[in-house]
Amino acid sequence: MRVIVHGVGAIGGVIAGGLALSGQEVVGIARGAQLEALRSGGLTLRGPGWVEHTRFDCVADPSDIALTPEDVVILTVKGQDTAAALGQLRAAGLSDQPLFCAQNGVANERAALRLFPNVHGMTVMSPSQFTVPGEVAIFAGPRMGIFDLGRYPGGADAADEALAGALNRGNFAAFVATDVMASKYGKLLLNLRNICEAALGDGDLTDRLAEAARAEARQVLQAAGIGWQDVGLADPRRKEFMQMAPVEGVGRAGTSTAQSLARGAGSIETDYLNGEIALIGRLNGIEAPVNGYLAALGARMLREGIAPGAVSPGEVAAVLGL
Amino acid sequence: MRVIVHGVGAIGGVIAGGLALSGQEVVGIARGAQLEALRSGGLTLRGPGWVEHTRFDCVADPSDIALTPEDVVILTVKGQDTAAALGQLRAAGLSDQPLFCAQNGVANERAALRLFPNVHGMTVMSPSQFTVPGEVAIFAGPRMGIFDLGRYPGGADAADEALAGALNRGNFAAFVATDVMASKYGKLLLNLRNICEAALGDGDLTDRLAEAARAEARQVLQAAGIGWQDVGLADPRRKEFMQMAPVEGVGRAGTSTAQSLARGAGSIETDYLNGEIALIGRLNGIEAPVNGYLAALGARMLREGIAPGAVSPGEVAAVLGL
Repeated sequence: MRVIVHGVGAIGGVIAGGLALSGQEVVGIARGAQLEALRSGGLTLRGPGWVEHTRFDCVADPSDIALTPEDVVILTVKGQDTAAALGQLRAAGLSDQPLFCAQNGVANERAALRLFPNVHGMTVMSPSQFTVPGEVAIFAGPRMGIFDLGRYPGGADAADEALAGALNRGNFAAFVATDVMASKYGKLLLNLRNICEAALGDGDLTDRLAEAARAEARQVLQAAGIGWQDVGLADPRRKEFMQMAPVEGVGRAGTSTAQSLARGAGSIETDYLNGEIALIGRLNGIEAPVNGYLAALGARMLREGIAPGAVSPGEVAAVLGL
Repeated sequence: MRVIVHGVGAIGGVIAGGLALSGQEVVGIARGAQLEALRSGGLTLRGPGWVEHTRFDCVADPSDIALTPEDVVILTVKGQDTAAALGQLRAAGLSDQPLFCAQNGVANERAALRLFPNVHGMTVMSPSQFTVPGEVAIFAGPRMGIFDLGRYPGGADAADEALAGALNRGNFAAFVATDVMASKYGKLLLNLRNICEAALGDGDLTDRLAEAARAEARQVLQAAGIGWQDVGLADPRRKEFMQMAPVEGVGRAGTSTAQSLARGAGSIETDYLNGEIALIGRLNGIEAPVNGYLAALGARMLREGIAPGAVSPGEVAAVLGL
């Protein structure tokens, strides 16, 4: 089994790095300065009290890889880049090899299943951060992440077992789940906070706003008949496998949403997080004003170039009656 | 009410033209040579035994329009261009104005509902064809098309009534439908033939292949609990409102799929037609080998630059056991 990691950013970097460090065959797909750095100097992983260095093959596009039936693909690009990545994979000749969506949100699996028959979900709990090209930090230990893996829309098969085994050898805690989407909906509930923090920074109003968004989302999911599994701080696996810890010399950046806004990325994940709750509400005739507002707020921050943390607390409090 | 037609191609051209000819306010969004031609010379509509000319405002991007709450948007871009068009509309400030998806396939409405709360489906039966920039032909009469309009995911409201009224004044036959998606699934069944004709040209094998794809699709929809309404030749509205007729000096081109392949467009609609049936099958554990094969075939024609009609009949017959 060769593992192709499409999108060697923070999460993709940690996954590819962990597999490569444990002597497993990996090919990374990356762009620009990151690709250049990975090719010339390899990847540096910085964890709590440790630094490791590894090398693996990296290419710019899936069509640079001669795909074989033994390949497995892990998709780690952001949700707004999934359509383009899927198009690249198909142009490269991917057909019925297992394709794992290791991304936030719950829409990537459906998009992948339109083009490919063998799609798997992969819930990612791994507090990692891109630092400079060729380097990723991971703020947890003893394992570098907890993953749930399973077939989409349901079930689990040998591909899940095989990849879970590879990830476990690569110093992750990977679990095969016959209802992986329940775990991904649980992760979605956690991610509803991202835009709150991106808009307002850290603080009490952010906490209250995030809790309002989550409470509303739980109601929407319940009314829509969608189950979820708590993968937050109450998940006992976190204590055993993945306790948060600082990394020497690396400060924590904000959420990926705040990072996207700060660097003017032109797109943010909010439509696939809070926007997913708004969509489920609209599909089922359930009001979801908090998440609808937050999705629209993310779009406005992008459109008007509003910096992370610069949204008026008064506006948010007034709109939501907090 | 001002109607914004996003994508003045064949269908968008006929709709915008019909509205403009009847004195209604229209703004078109177009690109390249088409935009230039529309701006400099207006739009020529050629029907069976008649030619009409009209002018309306045209822009390159929704952000060139000062949107108001009275605007209604009709999306007429191809399914593979919907995501980009929706992003443009939101960047331009569209919020809760009615957005009508007048496109083939059934995925556009869901994509739109993620970003906007007020989404409507619009089934389009209008045998129109882009000829040269600034000119569209319509091969039917007395009306220029039959449309079903309704709110997504269900119901109908004043926006459907208002647009249906405007379209009826514009020489279309427009109907408000409380289950517009049933009509759109019916249209989807018709469109399953597009890739068959694009692959093999017209003929007996194409007919048999298309019927196999449709029979399989009806089974998939039925098993998935999705209803559809026949909008094909058996629809009595066709006889009353829209009989096929030739247009002097304009030969019929192939389906839009064949046209996309012929001009090397880089993308085709097949993923949203036969691919939709494959997706519904996969989501519900129902085999859909014919439509799965046809979706993959469309992707291969695109990837390998296979010309319309150049797929080997022997290959198709062997794969499908026809």
